[in-house]
Amino acid sequence: MATTPTRVVIGVMGGGSADAAQEAKAYHLGRLIAKRGWVLLNGGRSAGIMEASARGAFEAGGLTVGVLPDADRRHLSPYIQIPILTGMGSARNYVNALSSDVVVACRGGAGTVSEVALALKHGRPVVLLDFDLSPVFPFYLDSGRLRWVATAEEAVIAIEAFLSAASPAA
Amino acid sequence: MATTPTRVVIGVMGGGSADAAQEAKAYHLGRLIAKRGWVLLNGGRSAGIMEASARGAFEAGGLTVGVLPDADRRHLSPYIQIPILTGMGSARNYVNALSSDVVVACRGGAGTVSEVALALKHGRPVVLLDFDLSPVFPFYLDSGRLRWVATAEEAVIAIEAFLSAASPAA
Amino acid sequence: MATTPTRVVIGVMGGGSADAAQEAKAYHLGRLIAKRGWVLLNGGRSAGIMEASARGAFEAGGLTVGVLPDADRRHLSPYIQIPILTGMGSARNYVNALSSDVVVACRGGAGTVSEVALALKHGRPVVLLDFDLSPVFPFYLDSGRLRWVATAEEAVIAIEAFLSAASPAA
Amino acid sequence: MATTPTRVVIGVMGGGSADAAQEAKAYHLGRLIAKRGWVLLNGGRSAGIMEASARGAFEAGGLTVGVLPDADRRHLSPYIQIPILTGMGSARNYVNALSSDVVVACRGGAGTVSEVALALKHGRPVVLLDFDLSPVFPFYLDSGRLRWVATAEEAVIAIEAFLSAASPAA
Repeated sequence: MATTPTRVVIGVMGGGSADAAQEAKAYHLGRLIAKRGWVLLNGGRSAGIMEASARGAFEAGGLTVGVLPDADRRHLSPYIQIPILTGMGSARNYVNALSSDVVVACRGGAGTVSEVALALKHGRPVVLLDFDLSPVFPFYLDSGRLRWVATAEEAVIAIEAFLSAASPAA
Repeated sequence: MATTPTRVVIGVMGGGSADAAQEAKAYHLGRLIAKRGWVLLNGGRSAGIMEASARGAFEAGGLTVGVLPDADRRHLSPYIQIPILTGMGSARNYVNALSSDVVVACRGGAGTVSEVALALKHGRPVVLLDFDLSPVFPFYLDSGRLRWVATAEEAVIAIEAFLSAASPAA
Repeated sequence: MATTPTRVVIGVMGGGSADAAQEAKAYHLGRLIAKRGWVLLNGGRSAGIMEASARGAFEAGGLTVGVLPDADRRHLSPYIQIPILTGMGSARNYVNALSSDVVVACRGGAGTVSEVALALKHGRPVVLLDFDLSPVFPFYLDSGRLRWVATAEEAVIAIEAFLSAASPAA
Repeated sequence: MATTPTRVVIGVMGGGSADAAQEAKAYHLGRLIAKRGWVLLNGGRSAGIMEASARGAFEAGGLTVGVLPDADRRHLSPYIQIPILTGMGSARNYVNALSSDVVVACRGGAGTVSEVALALKHGRPVVLLDFDLSPVFPFYLDSGRLRWVATAEEAVIAIEAFLSAASPAA
C-alpha cells in the first residue's frame, strides 16, 4: 500500500487533580490536537487534566484513547472513545510514554513526573506545558528532546517541530 | 451528556503464524466487525491472524487498534491505525483481554490460550472461532461465557448476543 | 568468581481455592522443593495452592518468594519471606512464568491455565501435577517440554530431569 | 503463628552507568543493608549501581533480589541470588518501587527518577543518597516521606527511621 494509515498519537499527561487554569489549558490543548487530526492519548480517568484534555479533543471532533490503570470502566472519562484497560496501576505510565509520538506534560504530581522520565528514557520527545521540571533533566533539555512552553498554542508548535524532525520509519 | 461516545471494542486473538484458511476467516471477521461499527483490537503485529484481521477491518473502513508486545513499531502491521506500544512482552495479553468487550479467539498457540484464559478469568466473554479449547474450560462453557462457533458470521451473532446481554454500565 | 550464586527457582502455580487433597499435595511439594535447596516462587496470596505450597516450603526451612497481583500486603501469605508486589493483577502471571526455572502447575482455574500457557510460550518447562491440560498443548507434550505426573515425588523427579537438561548458560 | 517471617526489603536504585565514587557508595550501602539483615532488591543487571550494590550485599552475606526488565538472564548480575524476570522493560520500575519497604535512590538518570516518582506516589518512603531531586518533589520533602543524605551510613539511619515509623500492618 502507498501510505500507512497509522495515526499520529499525542500523549497528554498531567495531574488527576488540577486547578481551573490548568484544566482550561488542557481543554484547549485537546481541541488543538483534535483539529490537527492527531489522536489524543491520556490516562483515561474522569478527573483533572485527563478529563479536560479528553473533553477538549472529543468536542472538537477528535479521537480519544484512554490508557487506564484500572481493570474496569468505573473511573473512565465519558469523553474517551477507546478505553485501554491495563489493570496494571501505574505500570500503565510506561505504556502511555511508549505509545505517544510526542508527550505533552501539563502540571502534575509524582505520576506525571514518572511519565516524563519514562518517555525521555525511551526516546520520546516531551513538551512541558507550564510545568517546570528543568532542574531534573538538564541532559534532555540540552539535547533538545525536552522543551518548555507556556501555552497550548506553543505546545502545538513544539509538537509539530518534533514530528517533522522524527524519522518517518521510527 | 446524553450518551457516552465509548466505542464497542472487539478483540481478535490468534496465532502469529496461521494457514491460509485461518487467515481468510480472520480477514472476513475483521470486515464484519468493521461493518458493525465496532473497533477491532488485536496484538498489532504484521503476522498471521493479527495482520489478516486488521487488514479486513481496515479495508472495510473500520478502526483498528494494535496492542503490541514491543516498545517500537518494527513489527507493526500496516493496517493498524492506533498502535499501543506496551514494551511488556506477553504481559500485554492481559491488556488485550481486559480491553475487549468480547474476545474472539481464532486458532492459535500458547499465547492465544493465555489470552482466552485471562479473558475468562476477568469476566470477558469469549467466542472460539473454529478453535477447540472446550476440554480446558468446562466451567465457562456451562456458564455460557464461552461459546464455540465455526464461521465468522456465527462469531458476529455470538458477539451480538454477548453485547446485548451485558449491563450497559459494565 | 568461580560460580554464580544464582539460586534455582521453582514456580508452583495453582488455584486460589483448592480442596484438601490438592492442598496436601501442594504442601508436600513445597517441602520437597525446600529440601532440595530450591527457592519456591508462587503467587503469594494466603489462599489455596499458594498458601499450602508456601507453608510446606517455609516449614521445611526453604526460601519462599511470592509474586503478588496486588500493590499491598493485605492478601500476603504469612509463609512468604520475600513478597514481590507487582500491582499488575494477572499480568503478574507472566512474571511468575518467566522467573521460574521450572513451573509446576497444580490443579487450578483459568489463571493457572494462563501461567502454563505463558511458561510454555516462553520456553520454561512445565510439570502438570495431577492437572490434565494435555488436550490443549499436544505440541509441547510431544516436544517433552510439558510432562504430567501424579504425585509430588514424581514432580520433583521431573523437575530434576528438566534442570539437568537445561543449558547452564540459559 | 507468632511472628511473620516476611523479610524487610530495601530497594536500591541508580544508574546503569555510574562513576567510581558512586559505585563505591552503592557497594558500601549494599554491605550495610546485608549486615542489618535486610534483603537488597535492585534492577538486577550487571552494570553500574545495580552491580555494585548487589556485590556489596552478597559479599557481606546478604540476600539479593534483582527485578530485571528482561525476559532472560543475559544481563543478570552474578551477585543476584534471586532473579525476577519481568520481561516488561521499564514497567518493572513500578514493581521495584512497590516491593521495597524503603527505596534508596543513588544518582541516576531518567529511569531512576521514574522509580523515585513511582515510590512516592504509592506511599513508599525514599532516601536520596547524594542525588538531588529536591526541586521536583517539594511536597514529599515537606511531608517527610523523602529525605536527602550524603553517605551510606546516613542512608541506613534514614532507613531505620522510616522502618520504625511504619505501621507493622502496612
